[in-house]
Amino acid sequence: MTNRDTRTPASTQTPQNPTAAPPETATNGEAGKSIGWHKAYVEGSRPDLRVPVRQVHLTNGQSVTLYDTSGPYTDPLLETDVRRGLPPLRENWIIARGDTEEYAGRPVRPEDDGIKHTSPRGGLRNLDAVFPGRPRQPRRGRDGKAVTQLAYARRGEITPEMEFVAVRENVSPEVVREEIAAGRAVLPANVNHPEIEPMIIGKRFLVKVNANIGNSAVTSSIEEEVEKMTWATRWGADTVMDLSTGRNIHTTREWVLRNSPVPIGTVPLYQALEKVDGKAEELTWEIYKDTVVEQAEQGVDYMTVHAGVRLPFVPLTANRKTGIVSRGGSIMAAWCLAHHKESFLYENFEELCEILAAYDVTYSLGDGLRPGSIADANDEAQFAELRTLGELNRIAKRFNVQTMIEGPGHVPMHKIKENIDLQQEICDEAPFYTLGPLTTDVAPAYDHITSGIGAAMIAWWGTAMLCYVTPKEHLGLPNRDDVKTGVITYKIAAHAADIAKGHPGAQEWDDALSDARFEFRWEDQFNLALDPDTAREFHDETLPAEPAKTAHFCSMCGPKFCSMKISQDIRRQHGGSQHEIEEGMAQKSKEFAAAGNRVYLPIAD
Amino acid sequence: MTNRDTRTPASTQTPQNPTAAPPETATNGEAGKSIGWHKAYVEGSRPDLRVPVRQVHLTNGQSVTLYDTSGPYTDPLLETDVRRGLPPLRENWIIARGDTEEYAGRPVRPEDDGIKHTSPRGGLRNLDAVFPGRPRQPRRGRDGKAVTQLAYARRGEITPEMEFVAVRENVSPEVVREEIAAGRAVLPANVNHPEIEPMIIGKRFLVKVNANIGNSAVTSSIEEEVEKMTWATRWGADTVMDLSTGRNIHTTREWVLRNSPVPIGTVPLYQALEKVDGKAEELTWEIYKDTVVEQAEQGVDYMTVHAGVRLPFVPLTANRKTGIVSRGGSIMAAWCLAHHKESFLYENFEELCEILAAYDVTYSLGDGLRPGSIADANDEAQFAELRTLGELNRIAKRFNVQTMIEGPGHVPMHKIKENIDLQQEICDEAPFYTLGPLTTDVAPAYDHITSGIGAAMIAWWGTAMLCYVTPKEHLGLPNRDDVKTGVITYKIAAHAADIAKGHPGAQEWDDALSDARFEFRWEDQFNLALDPDTAREFHDETLPAEPAKTAHFCSMCGPKFCSMKISQDIRRQHGGSQHEIEEGMAQKSKEFAAAGNRVYLPIAD
Repeated sequence: MTNRDTRTPASTQTPQNPTAAPPETATNGEAGKSIGWHKAYVEGSRPDLRVPVRQVHLTNGQSVTLYDTSGPYTDPLLETDVRRGLPPLRENWIIARGDTEEYAGRPVRPEDDGIKHTSPRGGLRNLDAVFPGRPRQPRRGRDGKAVTQLAYARRGEITPEMEFVAVRENVSPEVVREEIAAGRAVLPANVNHPEIEPMIIGKRFLVKVNANIGNSAVTSSIEEEVEKMTWATRWGADTVMDLSTGRNIHTTREWVLRNSPVPIGTVPLYQALEKVDGKAEELTWEIYKDTVVEQAEQGVDYMTVHAGVRLPFVPLTANRKTGIVSRGGSIMAAWCLAHHKESFLYENFEELCEILAAYDVTYSLGDGLRPGSIADANDEAQFAELRTLGELNRIAKRFNVQTMIEGPGHVPMHKIKENIDLQQEICDEAPFYTLGPLTTDVAPAYDHITSGIGAAMIAWWGTAMLCYVTPKEHLGLPNRDDVKTGVITYKIAAHAADIAKGHPGAQEWDDALSDARFEFRWEDQFNLALDPDTAREFHDETLPAEPAKTAHFCSMCGPKFCSMKISQDIRRQHGGSQHEIEEGMAQKSKEFAAAGNRVYLPIAD
Repeated sequence: MTNRDTRTPASTQTPQNPTAAPPETATNGEAGKSIGWHKAYVEGSRPDLRVPVRQVHLTNGQSVTLYDTSGPYTDPLLETDVRRGLPPLRENWIIARGDTEEYAGRPVRPEDDGIKHTSPRGGLRNLDAVFPGRPRQPRRGRDGKAVTQLAYARRGEITPEMEFVAVRENVSPEVVREEIAAGRAVLPANVNHPEIEPMIIGKRFLVKVNANIGNSAVTSSIEEEVEKMTWATRWGADTVMDLSTGRNIHTTREWVLRNSPVPIGTVPLYQALEKVDGKAEELTWEIYKDTVVEQAEQGVDYMTVHAGVRLPFVPLTANRKTGIVSRGGSIMAAWCLAHHKESFLYENFEELCEILAAYDVTYSLGDGLRPGSIADANDEAQFAELRTLGELNRIAKRFNVQTMIEGPGHVPMHKIKENIDLQQEICDEAPFYTLGPLTTDVAPAYDHITSGIGAAMIAWWGTAMLCYVTPKEHLGLPNRDDVKTGVITYKIAAHAADIAKGHPGAQEWDDALSDARFEFRWEDQFNLALDPDTAREFHDETLPAEPAKTAHFCSMCGPKFCSMKISQDIRRQHGGSQHEIEEGMAQKSKEFAAAGNRVYLPIAD
């Protein structure tokens, strides 16, 4: 076996021609051998359909192919420039379909960035902040036609986007088409966001992870947000939500979109609220709709819409321990209360569907009444909203709008399964997109862990995408480190679920790493790790010497007694022939002993 | 409600007289009011039975009582001195039973600390390292009698230790006695370890967490190990295993035992192996037995014994991906292979039972053949050993030895439940004590998380105690920070399981914290948090100003729009009467707005 396909090996129906770029890292000193990993591409049925993968080269000559979300930034052959944006990978595919048109578009106004004469606060701090990339006009479906992947899938068309994800997920394109057509999966891909590498969200596919970013007037610049986005995708975020609420919302989003290799989600309500200076009661359908068009023209791939927060449900939250904790949910509740009217989002949902269909913006139907504490989990307010989301999901499908459903929140372990089971039943198996859930409220500063537990479980049971939670949740603003910790924690949850679901190929990654562990191939362990940098750093804290990385005994027990060596002996005496016993082991043992390395076993026994 | 009993409130059958010590922390500046928490005691039916609790004082005048494992170190009224050791809390109880005797004991030999003429390595680096505390003679059951809590429970006796844990767990002493008598719970309490505050391990009680420490010749001193022990218990470790394998094993253990408020576990095989200079084939039953007596006389409360690794099972591991990864398991496998004989532990198990019974050492029957990778989970080697552990469990019970059973290891989520179900069936519901399990192999440096996921699940399904895993697992030696991260992660898993199991009172802790969150009582949130220090630090990173800690709007949305405020409005319009709306909210809002605090919401929406 020379190529050990893991998460996304070559698809069976396409020729496998990974175009090799030079290895990015070459950490092992063996001359003439490229060790580490490099960015490669698997070609589809056409030359412009190249699916990126991370190719890990092992010291035993094998290689492992992993799913890659990091975009062109990790390809040393490509020159990227955040001021120009990424190449528009999908542009020709979109144009070739012939069902969209460019048009003048809505003019960008100062208030899109929170600048207005009534505002005492400053606007863009630096006019240079306006994105300088190539001029573009927005695009939309001709005559308001639905130009969505759902529409194509329903009429039997396999788009290049579908083929792309088929290669990425190692399934047939027909499976992708079927899942999208049935509404069990979404492929978020606004016609105005040609830069993305298509990906799919659905329970038959790999579990996905979303990372949130977002600026604020006081703490974060546009540059920082773009950096957080590339940082999050480098560690494996499959989508990114820009939850900016401060100044420069429009411009920040433009920079993020033009530079993002993954789909971008937003909550248009946040920007709409900024336009009415934070006064929920002053919101109108017109302001909201205008904001949605603004964002759709920019290329937002999916939008959270809290249309399920209906007037009659608001009182159901009155006796909760923590009321309404969703920002979008409470904005809509405030509006309903102030006017004593039904939600304008619910009332105008069909018109909203028409807009989203014209750009292929995917709905993420928000759970505005999700529980904010263990005590409030699975209550009537939450499930009343879920039933409404089921109703809205069917309406969206009539308009050919791709739709996923958002889920809680804070839910103790024994109440998690009911959430996914009900959602799947009520929403016709539309993809579930959950925040956590957090399984206890008592650990602020560790909510990536309280929620990572719930996330792994609900993903195993069918959730298609997990929204990450960082250690700063409930306490403050995530920084770069928090973003990384959140993404890594959620990649663990997602991958653990992929294994538990029996996703083809998922466990091969674990197997490759376990083989490396058993055979003391330390560099391979690091390179295969979800976070090679930290794994290497932790190892080096104890045994920094280079010989320790090639020693055939590990740092835990030392050379005299080694459980792995005993296992090798057992294999020799009793075992099959699947592995040759390492020849150099005795010699390596002596070397290691001579180095005097002898430390203890930190593992429970 | 003035006293909000949470994890371990006053037991219903005993008078509640927490003896107040002055608050340890007083972080809030309000004059004349003691804010923070302090160590208190709940008295049982006798004055020398005082159960420690952590009393958290809230700013609204209420208080919350939490389970406390930190020992006398957090009581400012008690003077502790690691050179003298902790007061022998249980000594009078043990003497009063009249069934034990002091005796000369086995002389301590240089080789107990790894010092011998054949060894080129040095021994105790400093003779002062010998523990200087009060002279003591070991104690054991008269005429080899079983002086175990199991023996007492079976004949209907409720010992002070049982009453102590009943108060601690808020159940009746009779429930404790019944669970121990049935073998469904253990109360590890060697007659030579009178310093411990009794605790119980069983599925009807709070899920417990074990932390591993252990010295090594090159990296850790005796002092460091004692510090790691007190550090681990400060953060909530219910038991500590000393897995030392380097020099000074005997002396390190003495220091740890004399200063530990929690039961101490060991793997005697590790020390026995040191005595034969690391050569597994030179081990004998006599050397092993002598080591067990040595450790029992010192006061070790439970011992991992790998008696289930039988000769016929060794070949079952030959074709595994990662062979045998348990250190103890591979030592025994190596011995069996070298001699081609049945394990001396299995062959001499009854004699071992007699020894353990005389000191009330609890068995932790080791899972020497646990899987070391996802690929090896739930295989024939693992379950063959488990069936043997079931057989040994019954033998142990004949000798009145308390027994728990160790569990894996590396297990994907979908294979976890089978482990606990089989263990409970095969081992007559003896407490299960699991390491993790790790739900994926791909995240070295994050194995506290890969395993915390599995730990929460298996604890929900009935595991009684979880052995922590630190971020350094598979990579190196845990330092102080790693110990803390491991303990906190596992406390989260244990508490999430307590909630999911519906443990009485468990959720009240979450409710108290959620109330504080809803009412913007920041100091209460910090003081109630599993890790108050980090929660406060993270909050202060974004908003360090003191007013931000009393603001009735949080750092996420700022004063203009606040989901919590809207929830308050809803409650006022529609809600019940259980809470008065905060009167000062409008005023506080103005203060906060004046401070110009306006930042963004990091939560997905």
